[in-house]
Amino acid sequence: MSEFTNVTVVREANIYFGGAVASHTVVFADGSKKTLGVMQPGEYTFNTGAAELMEILSGELDLQLAGETGWRPIAGGQSFEVPANSSFTMKVKTVSDYCCSFLA
Amino acid sequence: MSEFTNVTVVREANIYFGGAVASHTVVFADGSKKTLGVMQPGEYTFNTGAAELMEILSGELDLQLAGETGWRPIAGGQSFEVPANSSFTMKVKTVSDYCCSFLA
Repeated sequence: MSEFTNVTVVREANIYFGGAVASHTVVFADGSKKTLGVMQPGEYTFNTGAAELMEILSGELDLQLAGETGWRPIAGGQSFEVPANSSFTMKVKTVSDYCCSFLA
Repeated sequence: MSEFTNVTVVREANIYFGGAVASHTVVFADGSKKTLGVMQPGEYTFNTGAAELMEILSGELDLQLAGETGWRPIAGGQSFEVPANSSFTMKVKTVSDYCCSFLA
């Protein structure tokens, strides 16, 4: 377990895919932003604006970045980066807890 | 939308019912605590330690507090309190976003 201190949290959840993916936004003193979320099993494609670091805290999924042909297994404790202005698809196999950092 | 400022957030989600209910813990400067969570459709019973104020931010559910015989419809924008050392059951009809405050 780890904590983020002296942050601002948005009360309302960000709801994607009818709630199968839901997150809460955390804003840091330096203006940087992370989202803390949970994904139900399913397949989800997300587009990026800024580059993202996705840390999977628990769960299991298969990952495909834009332009890749294969799938990469990702489990709790692993992370991956997604370039800016790109996309990625996750086949979430078990409920997955994540921390997404938006990179400057 | 509203925000909580100068708070501490626990990075890892609280996972209940296999992830169908998941929340993040927010701790305030005075030591008080809230959880921000999302519930998938389903029926869930929770026990309370401290009394709780449940604010339903969006979604629809039916509520039954311990000792009640009927069900009360609760929708986004409504809230309810649960006594300490009690329990409550929610039949969640649509994905529901909530803010739970633990009362001293």
